[in-house]
Amino acid sequence: MTIAVHTLETAAEAAPGPEPRVIRVALAGFGTVGGALVGLLRDREDAIARTHGIRFELVSILVRDPERSRPYPVPGDLLTSDVEAFLAADAHAIVEVLGGLEPAGRIAIAALGRGRTFVTANKALIAKHGPELAAAASGHGGRLLYEAAVAGGVPIIRALRDALPETGVQGIRGILNGTTNYILTRLSDGATFDQALAEARKEGYAESDSSRDLDGRDTEDKIRILAWLAFGADPGVFRVHRRGLTRHADRIAADADAFGGVARLVGECLALDGGLVAAVEPVIVSPGSSLARTLGADNFIEVETTYNGTLGFSGPGAGGGPTASAILSDLIRHVPHPPAPENTPMAVADGRELAWVVSIRSAGAVVSLRDLLMAEGVDPVLEMDDGCAGILRVRTAPCHRSRIKAVERALEGASLEPVVTRFESGGFSSA
Amino acid sequence: MTIAVHTLETAAEAAPGPEPRVIRVALAGFGTVGGALVGLLRDREDAIARTHGIRFELVSILVRDPERSRPYPVPGDLLTSDVEAFLAADAHAIVEVLGGLEPAGRIAIAALGRGRTFVTANKALIAKHGPELAAAASGHGGRLLYEAAVAGGVPIIRALRDALPETGVQGIRGILNGTTNYILTRLSDGATFDQALAEARKEGYAESDSSRDLDGRDTEDKIRILAWLAFGADPGVFRVHRRGLTRHADRIAADADAFGGVARLVGECLALDGGLVAAVEPVIVSPGSSLARTLGADNFIEVETTYNGTLGFSGPGAGGGPTASAILSDLIRHVPHPPAPENTPMAVADGRELAWVVSIRSAGAVVSLRDLLMAEGVDPVLEMDDGCAGILRVRTAPCHRSRIKAVERALEGASLEPVVTRFESGGFSSA
Repeated sequence: MTIAVHTLETAAEAAPGPEPRVIRVALAGFGTVGGALVGLLRDREDAIARTHGIRFELVSILVRDPERSRPYPVPGDLLTSDVEAFLAADAHAIVEVLGGLEPAGRIAIAALGRGRTFVTANKALIAKHGPELAAAASGHGGRLLYEAAVAGGVPIIRALRDALPETGVQGIRGILNGTTNYILTRLSDGATFDQALAEARKEGYAESDSSRDLDGRDTEDKIRILAWLAFGADPGVFRVHRRGLTRHADRIAADADAFGGVARLVGECLALDGGLVAAVEPVIVSPGSSLARTLGADNFIEVETTYNGTLGFSGPGAGGGPTASAILSDLIRHVPHPPAPENTPMAVADGRELAWVVSIRSAGAVVSLRDLLMAEGVDPVLEMDDGCAGILRVRTAPCHRSRIKAVERALEGASLEPVVTRFESGGFSSA
Repeated sequence: MTIAVHTLETAAEAAPGPEPRVIRVALAGFGTVGGALVGLLRDREDAIARTHGIRFELVSILVRDPERSRPYPVPGDLLTSDVEAFLAADAHAIVEVLGGLEPAGRIAIAALGRGRTFVTANKALIAKHGPELAAAASGHGGRLLYEAAVAGGVPIIRALRDALPETGVQGIRGILNGTTNYILTRLSDGATFDQALAEARKEGYAESDSSRDLDGRDTEDKIRILAWLAFGADPGVFRVHRRGLTRHADRIAADADAFGGVARLVGECLALDGGLVAAVEPVIVSPGSSLARTLGADNFIEVETTYNGTLGFSGPGAGGGPTASAILSDLIRHVPHPPAPENTPMAVADGRELAWVVSIRSAGAVVSLRDLLMAEGVDPVLEMDDGCAGILRVRTAPCHRSRIKAVERALEGASLEPVVTRFESGGFSSA
């Protein structure tokens, strides 16, 4: 599918609104995610101003080495390696994508203690110090936001925090680590563990030190955060049964296969009679399940509720773009009431060609379905004559919707009871 | 799984917080959804007060017949059949679950014109008058909220409005009508259309007049709302190619089957080069796709983005509980900053018994894996000796985690390189 954002936005761009409010942002960390965020803020600057009435201005970036070249160049005076200088920057919001407990924790406490908004992708920090940071935020009028800390671009934190608290959440389970899921997916394909890990690194899913991914600690951090949100359990305290992929990952996949299942590293937290139960471990799941069908570095989360059935959320669990998107959605919370969507005048035109299945009652048919299709410029690809049912079916080559409508009208005119159905095999672009 | 909400909440209930703020709610409509909302507000009253610091008070309920008996009895003086009397009630928030354009539209304009919060499950109203109502809201300081109007309890409106606006949404597609999906699922199972429709009615998925479901107008309304949110297109104006299930639904399912696919009624809106394209029509999708795997009355929505990959959202698309949950999540927006989760002290205990796969290196094994399992009180169910790989595998009967850990320790002591993996075949309760 072609990207057509510009087409859609042209009309609105022509009519400038009031001057956007400036939100000053300090960014701690300028690696993959930090770079993607800087790029996203730049790409979407006009759209954000128009839709939300705000403009983000970067006032400081904390880096290890200010001299290193960056994929998204920024003015050199923005960069600093001095935490104190970074904290002294006059920012409304502080974004932290350093990872690790320090200096991230110090930055968080400083930001929240001054009543600032602190946006983080740091799962280890929230899993260990979430309640402490939340208390610092509420004590000083700051805001603690961490959508990016769990499941990358999948808005699960927001859902648990805003949409689902009164649905009676009973359990959460899911695939929360892209590296291990990528490895398990490749093991099922026949790769060895070493091959799979090397590929995961090459694809950028696994860090050079992937021990926290492999032994399940990364998933454990995320489960602690989800259990805190859903059940109010102190994330740094309760027990999580954890078993990672470190030992014999090839055999886990082979054992699953031997019993007709698929191995997935599943994190879960459940409200049971005795209280909270949480685990991270390889689980053999049935091949048709949503867990088994979560492939590569994708994440999938299932939330079981009392009043709202079982909900599923899936999407990219990591990567610069998705994580930066999640951070941006937190930053945009500076606008407390999201505006209603504007009405953008929009051209409506469908240049796509789609494949179709056309079927007719064949009994008594005096026209050739093939000839009729071809007369309308539609190529039949596969014809099936179901004599028993008296139905003749044709699958067509992709053609414009108007052609298939002309075919349908002609068949209706001949009283052949046509049925027209679009044919595609999944994804958006497969028509 | 046993519901254990009370266990989890006991500790917090013992420590009362400050007096909750009262939010007065007027409810228009007291059928399935209205009744479920009244029940949910009652069930969750204490939890809502504790978590959000608010207490909802019903001040008026608009009904057709105040004399009819209700599954959730309320004081008789709350009920009125007079729209003017209903509108005169002193409410902070008005919830509308009547459906249809009038008197819902009149109630909406009156509520928003007085700066009130208007929460609705009415897809037809928003699809036709959304921008008008949004303008009334922003002109008078009111709020228009309609999470329940699309996909029941699946928080897709919230995601599109709050989480995804800057991800570069390129397309949305999904199964948005439970009645037709239930029918298509049953047709695939071999039921006739008439049987399937009768069952859908019996299960409460289809209304007695299901023409808006069957001909795709219900899905069209939802697609209009999603396209408005995602692309700013005036929902009452743009063209939607629509083809329903009304004619020859059995043949649609049979045609799909003949070509190895599964028929689903798919709604979609895409940003293409020429602008917006929207359609509601039966589509033959591949059996492994998320669309095909959406069964019965469930809904599924896929959002394709530029910066955030493809996201999936699934869950119950209709029904009293899910729709009432969505309404409640909108009502709770009265608390502008959702509080951080409290830390509830929580007992942690795992009484569950789970099934496992245990495998060992069989070469050189001098102990019997079966005997060792049984000595620890674990029943072996299925044993597989993979002589070529030198691996012996056993699937166990459900047992407590501690027993399988004892087995593992013993096998490690005997240097048999045990691999232990949980075995389950899908869902939460299947262990």
